[in-house]
Amino acid sequence: MREVYLDNAATTKIDDRVLEAMLPFLKEDFGNPTSLHGWGEKAKTAIEEARVSVAALIGAEPREIIFTSSGSEANSLAIKGSIKPLLRIGNHVITSTIEHFSVLHAIKALEKEGTIEVTYLPVDSFGMINVEDLVKAIRSETILISVMSANSEVGTIQSVDEIAKIANENKILFHTDAVAAAGIIPVNVDSGIDLLSLSASQFYGPKGAGALYVRSGVRIQPQIEGGIQESGKRGGTENVPAIVGLGKAASLAVEEMDDRNYRMESLRDRLITGLRSSIDDLTLNGHPTKRLPGNVHVRIEYIEGESMLIFLNMRGIAAASGSACTSRALKASHVMTALGIPREKVHGSLLFSLSKETTRDDVDYVIEVLPPIVARLREMSPMTPANDEIIGEVRK
Amino acid sequence: MREVYLDNAATTKIDDRVLEAMLPFLKEDFGNPTSLHGWGEKAKTAIEEARVSVAALIGAEPREIIFTSSGSEANSLAIKGSIKPLLRIGNHVITSTIEHFSVLHAIKALEKEGTIEVTYLPVDSFGMINVEDLVKAIRSETILISVMSANSEVGTIQSVDEIAKIANENKILFHTDAVAAAGIIPVNVDSGIDLLSLSASQFYGPKGAGALYVRSGVRIQPQIEGGIQESGKRGGTENVPAIVGLGKAASLAVEEMDDRNYRMESLRDRLITGLRSSIDDLTLNGHPTKRLPGNVHVRIEYIEGESMLIFLNMRGIAAASGSACTSRALKASHVMTALGIPREKVHGSLLFSLSKETTRDDVDYVIEVLPPIVARLREMSPMTPANDEIIGEVRK
Repeated sequence: MREVYLDNAATTKIDDRVLEAMLPFLKEDFGNPTSLHGWGEKAKTAIEEARVSVAALIGAEPREIIFTSSGSEANSLAIKGSIKPLLRIGNHVITSTIEHFSVLHAIKALEKEGTIEVTYLPVDSFGMINVEDLVKAIRSETILISVMSANSEVGTIQSVDEIAKIANENKILFHTDAVAAAGIIPVNVDSGIDLLSLSASQFYGPKGAGALYVRSGVRIQPQIEGGIQESGKRGGTENVPAIVGLGKAASLAVEEMDDRNYRMESLRDRLITGLRSSIDDLTLNGHPTKRLPGNVHVRIEYIEGESMLIFLNMRGIAAASGSACTSRALKASHVMTALGIPREKVHGSLLFSLSKETTRDDVDYVIEVLPPIVARLREMSPMTPANDEIIGEVRK
Repeated sequence: MREVYLDNAATTKIDDRVLEAMLPFLKEDFGNPTSLHGWGEKAKTAIEEARVSVAALIGAEPREIIFTSSGSEANSLAIKGSIKPLLRIGNHVITSTIEHFSVLHAIKALEKEGTIEVTYLPVDSFGMINVEDLVKAIRSETILISVMSANSEVGTIQSVDEIAKIANENKILFHTDAVAAAGIIPVNVDSGIDLLSLSASQFYGPKGAGALYVRSGVRIQPQIEGGIQESGKRGGTENVPAIVGLGKAASLAVEEMDDRNYRMESLRDRLITGLRSSIDDLTLNGHPTKRLPGNVHVRIEYIEGESMLIFLNMRGIAAASGSACTSRALKASHVMTALGIPREKVHGSLLFSLSKETTRDDVDYVIEVLPPIVARLREMSPMTPANDEIIGEVRK
């Protein structure tokens, strides 16, 4: 059977060149970077080279990069690690309603224990924050603004530079969760970003490697205590192979980003147009133009997203209904709810996320396969036992 | 040049069979375990199989295992995640002075912010806690006891079963940092352990994979927030290949532990005897019998450990002066200080840590190479410029 993987928002396949760079560190070059001998030196040198590559990807200095085990850990460290040292100045944090749970839940944990007060900025129906709302939300006690660079679910790209400028003018720390953006679209901390999270597995690097950029001079309190690793900001033996993979993925992204994106945008638009022309009552979620190059998030009325996923899966196509991090929970996505999409329409959502490896044939295969699936599912009333049975099967 | 790696306390080389198990998940089976399609299911199945293997290693149930990115993260989660929910009951924590920094610094962070009061139990000259000291330290407000299973630096194995019994009798949560023990010597949570941390890279598994055992019913607050991963206890996309590697390493440890340890103990004792008989004023640190099978930690008087390391390194031998996590800081080890060893004698410490791959020839090579190095270094007075120059070179 043909296999078409279009769930790259959940995770990408490691680039062969990245894996090749990692392999020596999974084999003979296995030393601990903090050890004072040849094996240790080799590992230490490798992670410092990776640090240079990651810094170059986002316009930072190598010493401003802290390696973590994931984008979520980077977000958690950014939020909790930066807020604690600022509490003597103020206790107000501004974020948006469409942030990733690793940001939202970290903030909510601090809010719940009474440490901070929080303003959750709404978004418009495209998933964009209104900058005027942000300006109005600022108080003299505001210590941190955290707004994502792009949303991996609906694909909307925020005006981060504008938000950074406002934060800077008001002398407020600005964090952006760039997990869905860094390595994919141009991101540069020069616009006034103080803290930035990224993840290797979003751009053909390995799982197990993320990074937090911390602007020089910004205080961050470690969340995983330990030894002297990462300048004392993050304990635990460094995951050398994964860090090397992140570094290689970052270098390749710098070199190839333009070409990758022309290709993905073209195929993305082909897929959107193809689905629109063959399926009635199909709406594109997210912003029409400020959109991630590989993101095709649609909702199809009078239908269950999960049923479509099963049938697509049976035809070898991997897609998602929303964020992978919560898909097994089968709750309505908080992002879709924030966009003001009614609950019953959220359930008809389908996310195809393309990669640099996606081909025209892949896209055309989806355009061929999906319409009959939709037609068949619409034949069954959403409430028939047959459909319930299918849904029941996924929920197991 | 002959290469002899005897720094396995810092990190071990991945077993070929472990890497083989990991490779598919670094290549074609790259799915996100939370995704609802074939790629996702394959990854999900793999991490659940690994969970069964890790649970079997320590006598736990699979659902009691939370995967983390390292032993340090497991320790941090154990300490901070368990203390917060218990603060309405009490605020006193007992630990020892020789814990790993990931335990000590997590506890100290909470102590510093006034959240908890802490008793740091002393150890005797062998690195053993006196159980009577522990009993005396218990208050009605004591909510957690955290004592390591074994110390990777001096090799001493604590009487964890006895400590667990006391904790249980007093209805106090008991955590043990078993990073230096699990996968190496028999460890079983049945003795009354509530929380246990372990790390794959200590027993021929990959870097980037640790686990925290949490006894069923014990509340733990996530420290990395996010999605539904690890039953909501630890956010972030699972590092599937590393988790698979941890699972395989655990299975191999269960099968081969006895044979590995007979071999390592024999070579360990051969090394100790060989060094003792050829170097004057050499003392074994740690406990003479309650000792990790691969641990040879000695101190050699009137000499700098770092100078010996350089010369050993020049002969292809990798060793350490203490814990890798702090080696580049070149501070006197807090463990050695806790054992009551005077500062000037600490500096003559040398740690050889053996692995299942260490051979008799490796050990005999060290016995051949080290005595002339010691003799040469002793010829130079510790205060001569020549020696200072050498030390200066390492500190760069």
